[in-house]
Amino acid sequence: MGSIITLTTDFGTADGYVASMKGVILSINPQAIIVDISHSIEPQNIFQAAFILSTVYPYFPEGTIHLAVVDPGVGSRRKAIILKTETALFVAPDNGILSYEIEESGKVHGKPARQIPATAELRKLSPGLEAVEIANPEYRQHPVSSTFHGRDIFAPAAAHLSLGVPPQKFGDAISQVHVFPIPLPYKNASGDIVGRVLHIDHFGNLITNVRSGDMPAGNATVIIGKHRVQGLSGFYAHTSGLSAIIGSSGYLEISLKNGSAAEFLGAKVGHEVRLEA
Amino acid sequence: MGSIITLTTDFGTADGYVASMKGVILSINPQAIIVDISHSIEPQNIFQAAFILSTVYPYFPEGTIHLAVVDPGVGSRRKAIILKTETALFVAPDNGILSYEIEESGKVHGKPARQIPATAELRKLSPGLEAVEIANPEYRQHPVSSTFHGRDIFAPAAAHLSLGVPPQKFGDAISQVHVFPIPLPYKNASGDIVGRVLHIDHFGNLITNVRSGDMPAGNATVIIGKHRVQGLSGFYAHTSGLSAIIGSSGYLEISLKNGSAAEFLGAKVGHEVRLEA
Amino acid sequence: MGSIITLTTDFGTADGYVASMKGVILSINPQAIIVDISHSIEPQNIFQAAFILSTVYPYFPEGTIHLAVVDPGVGSRRKAIILKTETALFVAPDNGILSYEIEESGKVHGKPARQIPATAELRKLSPGLEAVEIANPEYRQHPVSSTFHGRDIFAPAAAHLSLGVPPQKFGDAISQVHVFPIPLPYKNASGDIVGRVLHIDHFGNLITNVRSGDMPAGNATVIIGKHRVQGLSGFYAHTSGLSAIIGSSGYLEISLKNGSAAEFLGAKVGHEVRLEA
Repeated sequence: MGSIITLTTDFGTADGYVASMKGVILSINPQAIIVDISHSIEPQNIFQAAFILSTVYPYFPEGTIHLAVVDPGVGSRRKAIILKTETALFVAPDNGILSYEIEESGKVHGKPARQIPATAELRKLSPGLEAVEIANPEYRQHPVSSTFHGRDIFAPAAAHLSLGVPPQKFGDAISQVHVFPIPLPYKNASGDIVGRVLHIDHFGNLITNVRSGDMPAGNATVIIGKHRVQGLSGFYAHTSGLSAIIGSSGYLEISLKNGSAAEFLGAKVGHEVRLEA
Repeated sequence: MGSIITLTTDFGTADGYVASMKGVILSINPQAIIVDISHSIEPQNIFQAAFILSTVYPYFPEGTIHLAVVDPGVGSRRKAIILKTETALFVAPDNGILSYEIEESGKVHGKPARQIPATAELRKLSPGLEAVEIANPEYRQHPVSSTFHGRDIFAPAAAHLSLGVPPQKFGDAISQVHVFPIPLPYKNASGDIVGRVLHIDHFGNLITNVRSGDMPAGNATVIIGKHRVQGLSGFYAHTSGLSAIIGSSGYLEISLKNGSAAEFLGAKVGHEVRLEA
Repeated sequence: MGSIITLTTDFGTADGYVASMKGVILSINPQAIIVDISHSIEPQNIFQAAFILSTVYPYFPEGTIHLAVVDPGVGSRRKAIILKTETALFVAPDNGILSYEIEESGKVHGKPARQIPATAELRKLSPGLEAVEIANPEYRQHPVSSTFHGRDIFAPAAAHLSLGVPPQKFGDAISQVHVFPIPLPYKNASGDIVGRVLHIDHFGNLITNVRSGDMPAGNATVIIGKHRVQGLSGFYAHTSGLSAIIGSSGYLEISLKNGSAAEFLGAKVGHEVRLEA
């Protein structure tokens, strides 16, 4: 079967760690189509990986298997899991890296965060989702190293899934998984919408957690640090200086014409963005 | 059909933008073979992308589809185009990124530049080339974002082309396209050949616009800044210090044994190189 | 034939050099499955490439063709070779880049090094291995450039191998190849085991040449610079500060909880690591 397997890790591409995973996958399923999402996640930044994965996976065909390994707890008692949603399969450590897929199902009700969360919380899975623990020794490398489960547990699991092995063969169903409370914008006492910078991209664009549905009616002013940006732009090309725009994943972005908004503003992930109505 | 689609962008590989394009392509044509040319083009450096693409595409099989997206004008009125040459198809914004493919056809006669051009000019396409505007809404993502046509317009166009949809189905033929006047070496008053550094590669080699046919007869001296390099070397291994050599794409290169010529010379793209006969 | 061809180079991924090689391979064998191992080898660091390749190739299916091009001697008289081991084929310059594959066959007996070797030595191939010189002009690009044999000689050779052309068609068998004497740990006068840092990975982990079989019995103390690490850890997650662990390729590694051990220690490849019994 020519299934697609995507890879998201913090391994970089210099050492060959990613290639080892690909070798393991192709040894099990020579027909697998492997696509890199990103290997430049900041070391151990689970939340960043979760965000990037959430913006990319919807563009892959139904049934794609998404392997995500940012795994500071490798070798500890954190579980390895398979998550099955209505459209895709995810293979990952149970550490919050699948937060968006789980929370976006819309059925998990925790308190939304106002800031970038530091730790993941255990939450009950919604009925629309299924998860199993990866435990069956039949579907792993032997021996399993204590430091590289990406190669020895996660890659083999994804490869066997791509051959049609059903998730329940890998281990017991689990009903609770770790989730980062995803920060949502909120209204402050003055009626402004307060959001956060979720991600800074390669161009230095600031991607916030404010979606178009969260925007105040009329022509909002976006405030970040000491800077005010008047109104939304329709696209990058017409703007000069700082501008605010609804970006390609539906989030409000702040960008700088021919430059890096992040550098210009000295902005970091977690910084506050305010929208005056 | 197992067509090959190559990708050249300034998106970097950290954010997942490239992977979104691949997901879109594989959703339309699961048999597409996708090959990255470069995603490390300097942000919005169309001319650099044009040069790199020009050195790589001749090595791909006939009929390969080359998708090139460095697109500072995304969302503006710049056109999205398909260019058909005798050997390949190109999918790109009409902003000069296909300059080499268009000029090398040898039939477009504009004035050659002496310096790295800052802007592209509108030029009539030669008879050997065909171009269409990508306009048919049937062959794009819905909705089309205003900031990411790579994913929403260019990737779907390439994928549909790879399924055999003929270019004319995408929109009207166009006879004029944007082209950077490619800088060519010229003879100065003293009879020296004057060229420019077109590109600095990963090793710090300076790749100039001087081709072997442009070289003066006999053993030229290459002058860059305050340095003189006597004669051409046959290959890297025998040289020490600075050397000049005809590189793998047929251009005169200046390199430094076990080091970066660019760093050593403080050289940048656009710097002058002179050949004394 | 859908053979796998892996690529290991120092070309970076910005310029399109790697993509040119892929274009050449796909022009010869459109069914080839190409997998990148690393293109971020330090320029001309043959020994680093040799190490990384050695940690990755065992995870690929039998019969995989591994193309490795770190080639400071390109254009000189160094040979281009195909090496056939019991499980894989390697295509590379004869400059030591295949040292681990050749030495690990266990049949080549040279004096092991105590330090990172600066130069490769000519050694007789063991009976279990076969090598041929790549010389047949039928299996290369025309013309062959003097600076890019990766594209013009090595990539075509790998592609033709993947089509089933037997190694002996490429040229004469050779019995001697260049090998870096691989540094092995040794016992010093006090009975301590003395090893070296072989590689520093993306996370800043120091990977040494000490394998678990080399460790003294009992709970060793690992000494690096002025730091002492007491005993081996079972995995990363439980450790804090510096820790020592047997890593995923079987080598003793020194790592720092939530940080880069290399940066913290100012450690470099070649630095000494001592194990007190």
